[in-house]
Amino acid sequence: MFEKPASTEVPIAALLARRWSGRAFDPDRPVPREVLLALCEAARWAPSCYGDEPWRFVIWDRCADPDHWAHAFATLAEGNRAWARDAPLLMLAAAATVFARDGRANRWGAYDTGAASMSLCVQATESGLMVHQMGGFDPERLRLAFAIPETFHPMAMMAIGYQLPESRIPEGVREREYAPRSRRRLGESFFLGEWGRPGPL
Amino acid sequence: MFEKPASTEVPIAALLARRWSGRAFDPDRPVPREVLLALCEAARWAPSCYGDEPWRFVIWDRCADPDHWAHAFATLAEGNRAWARDAPLLMLAAAATVFARDGRANRWGAYDTGAASMSLCVQATESGLMVHQMGGFDPERLRLAFAIPETFHPMAMMAIGYQLPESRIPEGVREREYAPRSRRRLGESFFLGEWGRPGPL
Repeated sequence: MFEKPASTEVPIAALLARRWSGRAFDPDRPVPREVLLALCEAARWAPSCYGDEPWRFVIWDRCADPDHWAHAFATLAEGNRAWARDAPLLMLAAAATVFARDGRANRWGAYDTGAASMSLCVQATESGLMVHQMGGFDPERLRLAFAIPETFHPMAMMAIGYQLPESRIPEGVREREYAPRSRRRLGESFFLGEWGRPGPL
Repeated sequence: MFEKPASTEVPIAALLARRWSGRAFDPDRPVPREVLLALCEAARWAPSCYGDEPWRFVIWDRCADPDHWAHAFATLAEGNRAWARDAPLLMLAAAATVFARDGRANRWGAYDTGAASMSLCVQATESGLMVHQMGGFDPERLRLAFAIPETFHPMAMMAIGYQLPESRIPEGVREREYAPRSRRRLGESFFLGEWGRPGPL
Protein backbone atom coordinates (compact mmCIF):
# COMPACT_ATOMS: atom_id res chain seq x y z
CA MET A 1 0.00 0.00 0.00
CA PHE A 2 1.27 3.43 -1.00
CA GLU A 3 1.62 5.68 2.05
CA LYS A 4 2.62 9.25 2.74
CA PRO A 5 2.66 9.69 6.51
CA ALA A 6 2.31 13.10 8.13
CA SER A 7 5.53 14.95 8.82
CA THR A 8 5.46 15.83 12.53
CA GLU A 9 7.84 17.46 15.04
CA VAL A 10 7.35 14.56 17.45
CA PRO A 11 5.97 11.08 16.78
CA ILE A 12 2.19 10.63 16.81
CA ALA A 13 0.07 7.47 16.74
CA ALA A 14 0.73 5.57 13.51
CA LEU A 15 -2.98 5.36 12.74
CA LEU A 16 -3.17 9.17 12.73
CA ALA A 17 0.06 9.76 10.85
CA ARG A 18 -0.85 7.26 8.13
CA ARG A 19 -4.42 8.45 7.50
CA TRP A 20 -4.78 10.49 4.33
CA SER A 21 -7.45 11.22 1.78
CA GLY A 22 -6.50 9.30 -1.33
CA ARG A 23 -8.53 9.21 -4.52
CA ALA A 24 -7.29 6.11 -6.33
CA PHE A 25 -9.81 3.46 -5.26
CA ASP A 26 -9.83 -0.14 -6.44
CA PRO A 27 -13.23 -0.56 -8.18
CA ASP A 28 -12.99 -4.34 -8.06
CA ARG A 29 -12.54 -4.79 -4.33
CA PRO A 30 -15.71 -4.52 -2.26
CA VAL A 31 -15.67 -3.77 1.47
CA PRO A 32 -16.72 -6.81 3.54
CA ARG A 33 -19.71 -6.29 5.82
CA GLU A 34 -17.62 -6.92 8.93
CA VAL A 35 -15.16 -4.20 7.95
CA LEU A 36 -18.02 -1.79 7.31
CA LEU A 37 -19.39 -2.67 10.72
CA ALA A 38 -16.07 -1.75 12.33
CA LEU A 39 -16.22 1.68 10.64
CA CYS A 40 -19.69 2.22 12.10
CA GLU A 41 -18.70 1.06 15.56
CA ALA A 42 -15.74 3.45 15.53
CA ALA A 43 -18.03 6.39 14.70
CA ARG A 44 -20.66 5.23 17.15
CA TRP A 45 -18.32 5.45 20.13
CA ALA A 46 -17.18 9.02 19.49
CA PRO A 47 -17.89 11.53 22.28
CA SER A 48 -20.73 14.05 22.01
CA CYS A 49 -22.31 16.88 23.94
CA TYR A 50 -24.74 15.45 26.54
CA GLY A 51 -24.04 12.08 24.90
CA ASP A 52 -26.65 13.04 22.31
CA GLU A 53 -24.87 11.29 19.39
CA PRO A 54 -26.15 13.88 16.88
CA TRP A 55 -24.67 12.03 13.88
CA ARG A 56 -26.50 9.91 11.35
CA PHE A 57 -24.70 8.03 8.59
CA VAL A 58 -26.25 6.66 5.42
CA ILE A 59 -24.29 3.93 3.66
CA TRP A 60 -24.59 3.20 -0.06
CA ASP A 61 -23.03 -0.05 -1.25
CA ARG A 62 -22.49 -0.23 -5.01
CA CYS A 63 -22.38 -4.03 -5.06
CA ALA A 64 -25.35 -4.75 -2.81
CA ASP A 65 -27.61 -1.91 -3.93
CA PRO A 66 -26.42 -0.21 -7.14
CA ASP A 67 -29.61 1.84 -7.62
CA HIS A 68 -29.42 3.73 -4.35
CA TRP A 69 -25.65 4.08 -4.76
CA ALA A 70 -26.25 5.71 -8.17
CA HIS A 71 -28.77 8.18 -6.72
CA ALA A 72 -26.27 9.20 -4.06
CA PHE A 73 -23.42 9.34 -6.59
CA ALA A 74 -25.44 11.66 -8.84
CA THR A 75 -25.46 14.34 -6.11
CA LEU A 76 -21.64 14.63 -6.15
CA ALA A 77 -19.90 17.55 -7.84
CA GLU A 78 -18.51 16.70 -11.26
CA GLY A 79 -14.89 16.89 -10.12
CA ASN A 80 -15.58 14.35 -7.38
CA ARG A 81 -17.56 12.02 -9.67
CA ALA A 82 -14.44 11.65 -11.81
CA TRP A 83 -12.68 9.56 -9.16
CA ALA A 84 -15.39 8.66 -6.60
CA ARG A 85 -17.06 6.38 -9.15
CA ASP A 86 -14.49 3.73 -8.26
CA ALA A 87 -15.34 3.73 -4.55
CA PRO A 88 -17.49 0.72 -3.64
CA LEU A 89 -19.01 2.60 -0.70
CA LEU A 90 -20.42 6.07 -0.40
CA MET A 91 -21.48 7.39 2.98
CA LEU A 92 -23.21 10.52 4.11
CA ALA A 93 -22.45 12.10 7.48
CA ALA A 94 -25.45 14.17 8.61
CA ALA A 95 -25.60 16.33 11.73
CA ALA A 96 -28.65 16.93 13.91
CA THR A 97 -29.54 20.58 14.40
CA VAL A 98 -31.50 19.85 17.59
CA PHE A 99 -30.94 17.62 20.60
CA ALA A 100 -32.76 14.29 20.50
CA ARG A 101 -33.39 14.57 24.23
CA ASP A 102 -35.36 17.82 24.25
CA GLY A 103 -35.61 19.26 20.73
CA ARG A 104 -33.63 22.37 21.60
CA ALA A 105 -31.02 23.76 19.19
CA ASN A 106 -27.77 21.80 19.33
CA ARG A 107 -24.85 24.02 18.44
CA TRP A 108 -22.49 21.03 18.63
CA GLY A 109 -24.26 18.91 16.01
CA ALA A 110 -21.70 19.45 13.26
CA TYR A 111 -18.74 19.46 15.66
CA ASP A 112 -19.69 16.11 17.18
CA THR A 113 -20.50 14.63 13.77
CA GLY A 114 -17.06 15.68 12.55
CA ALA A 115 -15.59 13.79 15.50
CA ALA A 116 -17.57 10.65 14.63
CA SER A 117 -16.40 10.89 11.01
CA MET A 118 -12.79 11.27 12.09
CA SER A 119 -13.14 8.22 14.27
CA LEU A 120 -14.46 6.35 11.22
CA CYS A 121 -11.44 7.54 9.19
CA VAL A 122 -9.02 6.30 11.85
CA GLN A 123 -10.71 2.90 11.86
CA ALA A 124 -10.54 2.86 8.05
CA THR A 125 -6.76 3.25 8.31
CA GLU A 126 -6.69 0.41 10.82
CA SER A 127 -8.72 -1.74 8.37
CA GLY A 128 -6.48 -0.91 5.39
CA LEU A 129 -9.12 1.27 3.73
CA MET A 130 -9.05 4.80 2.37
CA VAL A 131 -11.71 7.40 3.10
CA HIS A 132 -12.00 10.63 1.15
CA GLN A 133 -14.50 13.12 2.52
CA MET A 134 -16.17 15.53 0.13
CA GLY A 135 -17.91 18.85 0.66
CA GLY A 136 -18.60 18.97 -3.07
CA PHE A 137 -22.12 17.56 -3.38
CA ASP A 138 -25.63 18.97 -3.61
CA PRO A 139 -27.11 18.71 -0.11
CA GLU A 140 -30.62 19.76 -1.15
CA ARG A 141 -30.74 17.25 -3.99
CA LEU A 142 -29.57 14.58 -1.55
CA ARG A 143 -32.18 15.68 0.96
CA LEU A 144 -34.93 15.32 -1.63
CA ALA A 145 -33.69 12.03 -3.03
CA PHE A 146 -33.49 10.38 0.38
CA ALA A 147 -36.14 12.27 2.38
CA ILE A 148 -33.61 13.60 4.90
CA PRO A 149 -35.50 15.41 7.69
CA GLU A 150 -35.11 19.17 8.02
CA THR A 151 -33.59 18.68 11.47
CA PHE A 152 -30.43 17.18 9.94
CA HIS A 153 -27.75 18.91 7.86
CA PRO A 154 -25.94 16.81 5.25
CA MET A 155 -22.31 17.64 6.14
CA ALA A 156 -20.04 15.41 4.09
CA MET A 157 -20.12 12.61 1.57
CA MET A 158 -17.38 10.03 1.91
CA ALA A 159 -15.88 7.76 -0.70
CA ILE A 160 -14.64 4.57 0.94
CA GLY A 161 -12.73 1.62 -0.44
CA TYR A 162 -9.36 -0.06 -0.87
CA GLN A 163 -6.47 1.66 -2.55
CA LEU A 164 -5.75 0.73 -6.14
CA PRO A 165 -2.46 -1.19 -6.42
CA GLU A 166 0.25 1.32 -7.34
CA SER A 167 0.95 -0.26 -10.72
CA ARG A 168 -2.67 0.35 -11.74
CA ILE A 169 -2.90 4.03 -10.75
CA PRO A 170 -3.54 5.88 -14.06
CA GLU A 171 -0.99 8.44 -15.26
CA GLY A 172 -3.38 11.41 -14.90
CA VAL A 173 -4.21 10.58 -11.30
CA ARG A 174 -0.70 9.68 -10.22
CA GLU A 175 0.67 13.20 -9.83
CA ARG A 176 -2.10 14.39 -7.52
CA GLU A 177 -2.09 11.14 -5.59
CA TYR A 178 1.65 11.33 -4.97
CA ALA A 179 1.76 15.04 -4.13
CA PRO A 180 3.23 15.70 -0.67
CA ARG A 181 0.81 16.47 2.16
CA SER A 182 1.11 19.80 3.91
CA ARG A 183 -0.39 21.79 6.75
CA ARG A 184 -0.08 25.32 8.11
CA ARG A 185 2.73 25.82 10.60
CA LEU A 186 1.81 24.68 14.10
CA GLY A 187 2.00 28.16 15.66
CA GLU A 188 -0.61 29.48 13.23
CA SER A 189 -3.33 27.18 14.56
CA PHE A 190 -2.19 26.38 18.12
CA PHE A 191 -1.91 29.21 20.59
CA LEU A 192 -0.43 29.27 24.09
CA GLY A 193 -2.19 31.21 26.86
CA GLU A 194 -3.52 33.90 24.53
CA TRP A 195 -5.28 34.03 21.20
CA GLY A 196 -2.70 34.43 18.42
CA ARG A 197 0.37 33.69 20.54
CA PRO A 198 2.17 30.86 18.74
CA GLY A 199 2.63 27.68 20.71
CA PRO A 200 3.77 25.23 21.87
CA LEU A 201 6.93 24.77 19.80
CA MET B 1 -4.75 2.80 34.47
CA PHE B 2 -8.45 2.21 34.87
CA GLU B 3 -10.08 1.48 31.51
CA LYS B 4 -13.57 0.77 30.26
CA PRO B 5 -13.27 -0.06 26.56
CA ALA B 6 -16.19 0.35 24.17
CA SER B 7 -18.38 -2.69 23.72
CA THR B 8 -18.51 -3.34 19.96
CA GLU B 9 -19.99 -6.01 17.65
CA VAL B 10 -16.64 -6.42 15.91
CA PRO B 11 -13.17 -5.38 17.07
CA ILE B 12 -12.11 -1.78 16.41
CA ALA B 13 -8.72 -0.10 16.79
CA ALA B 14 -7.62 -0.25 20.43
CA LEU B 15 -6.94 3.50 20.49
CA LEU B 16 -10.59 4.14 19.61
CA ALA B 17 -12.07 1.50 21.89
CA ARG B 18 -10.03 2.69 24.87
CA ARG B 19 -10.72 6.44 24.51
CA TRP B 20 -13.24 7.72 27.01
CA SER B 21 -14.00 10.99 28.78
CA GLY B 22 -12.89 10.52 32.38
CA ARG B 23 -13.07 13.22 35.04
CA ALA B 24 -10.63 12.03 37.71
CA PHE B 25 -7.44 13.92 36.79
CA ASP B 26 -4.18 13.77 38.71
CA PRO B 27 -3.54 17.37 39.82
CA ASP B 28 0.10 16.66 40.59
CA ARG B 29 1.18 15.32 37.22
CA PRO B 30 1.84 17.97 34.57
CA VAL B 31 1.83 17.19 30.84
CA PRO B 32 5.33 17.37 29.35
CA ARG B 33 5.78 19.80 26.47
CA GLU B 34 6.64 17.01 24.04
CA VAL B 35 3.41 15.18 24.85
CA LEU B 36 1.43 18.39 24.37
CA LEU B 37 3.17 18.84 21.04
CA ALA B 38 2.03 15.37 19.95
CA LEU B 39 -1.59 16.32 20.76
CA CYS B 40 -1.25 19.41 18.58
CA GLU B 41 0.38 17.53 15.72
CA ALA B 42 -2.43 14.98 15.78
CA ALA B 43 -5.06 17.72 15.48
CA ARG B 44 -3.02 19.58 12.89
CA TRP B 45 -3.05 16.68 10.43
CA ALA B 46 -6.82 16.16 10.47
CA PRO B 47 -8.59 16.53 7.12
CA SER B 48 -10.60 19.64 6.26
CA CYS B 49 -12.71 21.06 3.47
CA TYR B 50 -10.41 22.65 0.84
CA GLY B 51 -7.60 21.94 3.30
CA ASP B 52 -8.58 25.17 5.04
CA GLU B 53 -7.76 23.89 8.57
CA PRO B 54 -10.53 26.00 10.14
CA TRP B 55 -9.57 25.02 13.70
CA ARG B 56 -7.70 27.11 16.24
CA PHE B 57 -6.72 25.75 19.64
CA VAL B 58 -5.73 27.80 22.68
CA ILE B 59 -3.77 25.97 25.36
CA TRP B 60 -3.73 26.99 29.01
CA ASP B 61 -1.08 25.36 31.17
CA ARG B 62 -1.72 25.65 34.90
CA CYS B 63 1.94 25.09 35.82
CA ALA B 64 3.55 27.37 33.26
CA ASP B 65 0.96 30.16 33.27
CA PRO B 66 -1.49 29.92 36.19
CA ASP B 67 -3.04 33.36 35.55
CA HIS B 68 -4.27 32.68 32.05
CA TRP B 69 -5.32 29.19 33.10
CA ALA B 70 -7.44 30.72 35.88
CA HIS B 71 -9.13 33.14 33.45
CA ALA B 72 -10.03 30.24 31.18
CA PHE B 73 -11.12 28.07 34.11
CA ALA B 74 -13.46 30.82 35.34
CA THR B 75 -15.52 30.54 32.13
CA LEU B 76 -16.45 26.91 32.85
CA ALA B 77 -19.88 25.94 34.15
CA GLU B 78 -19.94 25.26 37.87
CA GLY B 79 -20.52 21.54 37.44
CA ASN B 80 -17.43 21.29 35.26
CA ARG B 81 -15.28 23.42 37.58
CA ALA B 82 -15.86 20.84 40.32
CA TRP B 83 -13.62 18.30 38.59
CA ALA B 84 -11.80 20.23 35.81
CA ARG B 85 -9.81 22.14 38.45
CA ASP B 86 -7.50 19.13 38.68
CA ALA B 87 -6.64 19.13 34.97
CA PRO B 88 -3.19 20.64 34.37
CA LEU B 89 -4.20 21.67 30.84
CA LEU B 90 -7.27 23.38 29.50
CA MET B 91 -7.71 23.81 25.78
CA LEU B 92 -10.23 25.62 23.65
CA ALA B 93 -11.24 24.32 20.24
CA ALA B 94 -12.52 27.22 18.12
CA ALA B 95 -13.98 26.93 14.62
CA ALA B 96 -13.65 29.45 11.81
CA THR B 97 -16.94 30.66 10.35
CA VAL B 98 -15.28 31.74 7.09
CA PHE B 99 -12.64 30.25 4.82
CA ALA B 100 -9.12 31.63 5.31
CA ARG B 101 -8.58 31.42 1.56
CA ASP B 102 -11.39 33.73 0.42
CA GLY B 103 -13.41 34.93 3.43
CA ARG B 104 -16.59 33.20 2.28
CA ALA B 105 -18.84 31.39 4.78
CA ASN B 106 -17.45 27.98 5.72
CA ARG B 107 -20.26 25.64 6.63
CA TRP B 108 -17.73 22.95 7.58
CA GLY B 109 -15.88 24.99 10.21
CA ALA B 110 -17.36 23.20 13.22
CA TYR B 111 -17.40 19.80 11.50
CA ASP B 112 -13.70 19.96 10.61
CA THR B 113 -12.80 21.33 14.04
CA GLY B 114 -14.62 18.40 15.65
CA ALA B 115 -12.46 16.09 13.54
CA ALA B 116 -9.27 17.82 14.69
CA SER B 117 -10.39 17.54 18.32
CA MET B 118 -11.15 13.85 17.89
CA SER B 119 -7.72 13.33 16.43
CA LEU B 120 -6.28 15.06 19.50
CA CYS B 121 -8.31 12.74 21.75
CA VAL B 122 -7.02 9.65 19.96
CA GLN B 123 -3.45 10.87 20.38
CA ALA B 124 -4.17 11.55 24.06
CA THR B 125 -5.13 7.89 24.47
CA GLU B 126 -1.89 6.91 22.72
CA SER B 127 0.03 9.15 25.14
CA GLY B 128 -1.71 7.76 28.24
CA LEU B 129 -3.70 10.95 28.82
CA MET B 130 -7.39 11.62 29.35
CA VAL B 131 -9.32 14.35 27.55
CA HIS B 132 -12.77 15.47 28.64
CA GLN B 133 -14.50 17.87 26.30
CA MET B 134 -17.02 20.32 27.71
CA GLY B 135 -19.83 22.26 26.13
CA GLY B 136 -20.56 23.79 29.52
CA PHE B 137 -18.68 27.08 29.45
CA ASP B 138 -19.50 30.72 28.68
CA PRO B 139 -18.32 31.31 25.11
CA GLU B 140 -18.94 35.06 25.18
CA ARG B 141 -17.05 35.52 28.43
CA LEU B 142 -14.19 33.52 26.93
CA ARG B 143 -14.34 35.61 23.75
CA LEU B 144 -14.05 38.81 25.78
CA ALA B 145 -11.33 37.52 28.10
CA PHE B 146 -9.09 36.37 25.25
CA ALA B 147 -10.12 38.71 22.40
CA ILE B 148 -11.33 35.87 20.21
CA PRO B 149 -12.23 37.28 16.78
CA GLU B 150 -15.88 37.29 15.68
CA THR B 151 -14.98 34.99 12.79
CA PHE B 152 -14.34 32.11 15.20
CA HIS B 153 -16.86 30.19 17.31
CA PRO B 154 -15.64 28.76 20.63
CA MET B 155 -16.87 25.16 20.30
CA ALA B 156 -15.48 23.16 23.20
CA MET B 157 -13.26 23.45 26.21
CA MET B 158 -11.14 20.41 27.00
CA ALA B 159 -9.71 19.27 30.29
CA ILE B 160 -6.51 17.33 29.68
CA GLY B 161 -4.24 15.43 32.03
CA TYR B 162 -3.27 12.07 33.46
CA GLN B 163 -5.74 9.85 35.25
CA LEU B 164 -5.63 9.84 39.02
CA PRO B 165 -4.38 6.48 40.36
CA GLU B 166 -7.44 4.38 41.20
CA SER B 167 -6.68 4.25 44.91
CA ARG B 168 -6.86 8.06 45.07
CA ILE B 169 -10.19 8.51 43.26
CA PRO B 170 -12.52 10.08 45.86
CA GLU B 171 -15.62 8.18 46.92
CA GLY B 172 -18.03 10.76 45.49
CA VAL B 173 -16.41 10.68 42.06
CA ARG B 174 -15.91 6.93 41.90
CA GLU B 175 -19.46 5.95 41.01
CA ARG B 176 -19.73 8.25 38.01
CA GLU B 177 -16.21 7.43 36.90
CA TYR B 178 -16.89 3.69 36.96
CA ALA B 179 -20.34 3.84 35.36
CA PRO B 180 -20.55 1.74 32.19
CA ARG B 181 -20.36 3.54 28.84
CA SER B 182 -23.29 3.27 26.48
CA ARG B 183 -24.43 4.32 23.02
CA ARG B 184 -27.62 4.14 20.98
CA ARG B 185 -28.09 0.93 19.04
CA LEU B 186 -26.16 0.89 15.78
CA GLY B 187 -29.25 0.78 13.55
CA GLU B 188 -30.55 4.01 15.06
CA SER B 189 -27.63 6.07 13.78
CA PHE B 190 -26.36 4.07 10.78
CA PHE B 191 -28.66 3.59 7.84
CA LEU B 192 -28.30 1.39 4.77
CA GLY B 193 -29.34 2.70 1.35
CA GLU B 194 -32.17 4.85 2.71
CA TRP B 195 -32.64 7.31 5.53
CA GLY B 196 -33.99 5.49 8.58
CA ARG B 197 -33.40 1.95 7.31
CA PRO B 198 -31.30 0.25 10.01
CA GLY B 199 -27.92 -1.02 8.94
CA PRO B 200 -25.51 -2.66 8.59
CA LEU B 201 -25.99 -5.35 11.26
